[in-house]
Amino acid sequence: MPEKIVNYQDLYNFTQNIFLKIGCSASHAALAAKVLLSADLRGIDSHGVARLSGYVRLWEVKRVNATPHIRIIHETPSTAVIDGDSGLGLVVAPYAMEVAIDKAKNVGTGWVSVQNSNHFGIAGYHAMMALQHDMIGISMTNASPLVAPTFSVERLLGTNPICVAIPAGEQPPFVADLATTTAANGKLEILQRKNQKAPLGWIQDKEGNPSVNAHELKSGGALVPLGGDREHGSHKGYALGAIVDIFSAVLSGANYGPWVPPFPAYVPMPTEMPGNGIGHFLGAMRVDAFRPADDFKLHMDNWIQRFRHAKPVSGQEKVLIPGDPEREMEAHRMVAGIPLVQAVADDLQLLGEKLGVPFVS
Amino acid sequence: MPEKIVNYQDLYNFTQNIFLKIGCSASHAALAAKVLLSADLRGIDSHGVARLSGYVRLWEVKRVNATPHIRIIHETPSTAVIDGDSGLGLVVAPYAMEVAIDKAKNVGTGWVSVQNSNHFGIAGYHAMMALQHDMIGISMTNASPLVAPTFSVERLLGTNPICVAIPAGEQPPFVADLATTTAANGKLEILQRKNQKAPLGWIQDKEGNPSVNAHELKSGGALVPLGGDREHGSHKGYALGAIVDIFSAVLSGANYGPWVPPFPAYVPMPTEMPGNGIGHFLGAMRVDAFRPADDFKLHMDNWIQRFRHAKPVSGQEKVLIPGDPEREMEAHRMVAGIPLVQAVADDLQLLGEKLGVPFVS
Repeated sequence: MPEKIVNYQDLYNFTQNIFLKIGCSASHAALAAKVLLSADLRGIDSHGVARLSGYVRLWEVKRVNATPHIRIIHETPSTAVIDGDSGLGLVVAPYAMEVAIDKAKNVGTGWVSVQNSNHFGIAGYHAMMALQHDMIGISMTNASPLVAPTFSVERLLGTNPICVAIPAGEQPPFVADLATTTAANGKLEILQRKNQKAPLGWIQDKEGNPSVNAHELKSGGALVPLGGDREHGSHKGYALGAIVDIFSAVLSGANYGPWVPPFPAYVPMPTEMPGNGIGHFLGAMRVDAFRPADDFKLHMDNWIQRFRHAKPVSGQEKVLIPGDPEREMEAHRMVAGIPLVQAVADDLQLLGEKLGVPFVS
Repeated sequence: MPEKIVNYQDLYNFTQNIFLKIGCSASHAALAAKVLLSADLRGIDSHGVARLSGYVRLWEVKRVNATPHIRIIHETPSTAVIDGDSGLGLVVAPYAMEVAIDKAKNVGTGWVSVQNSNHFGIAGYHAMMALQHDMIGISMTNASPLVAPTFSVERLLGTNPICVAIPAGEQPPFVADLATTTAANGKLEILQRKNQKAPLGWIQDKEGNPSVNAHELKSGGALVPLGGDREHGSHKGYALGAIVDIFSAVLSGANYGPWVPPFPAYVPMPTEMPGNGIGHFLGAMRVDAFRPADDFKLHMDNWIQRFRHAKPVSGQEKVLIPGDPEREMEAHRMVAGIPLVQAVADDLQLLGEKLGVPFVS
């Protein structure tokens, strides 16, 4: 597949300028670009600049407010609910995470549920904000319904990711960032572009039968929860996705389940929506609210080294620690540049022409 | 398979008397029996009285302290670390959950990591303690290493369950209680007793190859993380199990990974253990620390009803809400009695004879 390699800084400048053009403040545009591109750097291409024109289209139909007044609408010493005022999730979620971190500084932990937001990029960015404070960071979000619960033919949940970021000492941090489905939608999109089949256990057709057609979602099919089918624990993936939905939206007053607003601006909004926008849930736990940070980090280093040096199965080089592949990808792409598939490069070119921002040549 | 049906109250009295015989206080014996039997009532037979003689054997080898001095060794307004003093997890975990609930009353949420404990029965019991306070309850524990991380031939994690219990209004609560493996060890034990094969995707052999031999763990094999294999997301199940291990043990100062003490008393303890006993992690979040409890419950009812009434796939009656099967089982067994497979009934008979407690006839 033809690709265009783009330097990180060039792509960042372009993205920041696009956000400025739709009316974001300088600080919001810079933050939104940084959060969005953290996906491209870490190899989660589906959640990065591939979505930039999608965010702009949401702004065009007035579902994204470029100048939100983000505010706390309820709080206790360890919790808060935040109204994102229809802002970009890319700026609402970092705001909420800062609130969680401040609360953790004061009382040990902080937990923030967010309503009236939009898609927030990769969960990993927000959870990792806690690391520099010697805190464990947690982030999750609900999303457009693409996933059928076990035994359901209807799509009622998003791919609802969970990220947990845990600091270590000399070792790099543990960063688990996972969709609660067998495969993230982005992996399916790659197969669609290549016109390849999907493995059994990723999707079902509109009747709920297992399917290998990567285009099945366009015909009423659905992604399936982590586990794949009941015999292999899909009810657990369903439960995890449901927990993300409830923490993100039922706690905050956002929309949940099948009522979560769709990401594509052309898809009609659901009727009788029970809340505002989409929801996130962010958490921060100070490590030294449990034991001295140095002790904790020493044992995390021990944990990581023991697992990384476990005997691997034949044909595999080593056992990975969650976060290893993304960290290596980030180091590589920061130097070597970010590859864009031609369709994404073309889309950004058009977007730049429309808004008067020259795309990187 | 031959079975013996035993009345709940009779089984409770027997279990309580066994705990009294090993020296537990009256209140601890009553609580331990209640927690242990909540597994049998809810249909998680592997974690109930089937393990009673195992707990007694741990007491015989002085790994369980029947008269523990359970105490808080570190705390902040929203967190605590508890030393279980080698007590039964069946009494240590409820103590820790009460601490979490008290902290949530004061500052919105409470989070307790526990060291120096033993197996705590089903995660569901402890998380559900929060429900009567209009709180969301969370519980997790690490356990004896039976699970190989993705790409590992070594067993480094337990089945490390997570439970999240969420109150509703007119609907019964949402209670997701799940091992972070494709199948809990108890399900494998059932197949072992029946001499049946396991589905592909539950276990691997000692070389890390997929296996259908339900006895594989006796020959160096392992359970596999939720997802089953890399293509179906086993790295996510591995990450979830790892998070449980770190929250339960690296935060608290308990043993983690391959150093978690084995449940069978005859299995030698690991060497160079990095902590004390096994670890748990308990959390409580006051619903009204986020939004008024009545609002929350109204929306939980709406969530539950929408999911329960989703169109089911052909051949399935309905979409289930996490906790439905266990709640129905509990209502049934409280009236109809608890079925014990003959091997368990025989084991309890012998245990009763040894300690001078007549087993239910």
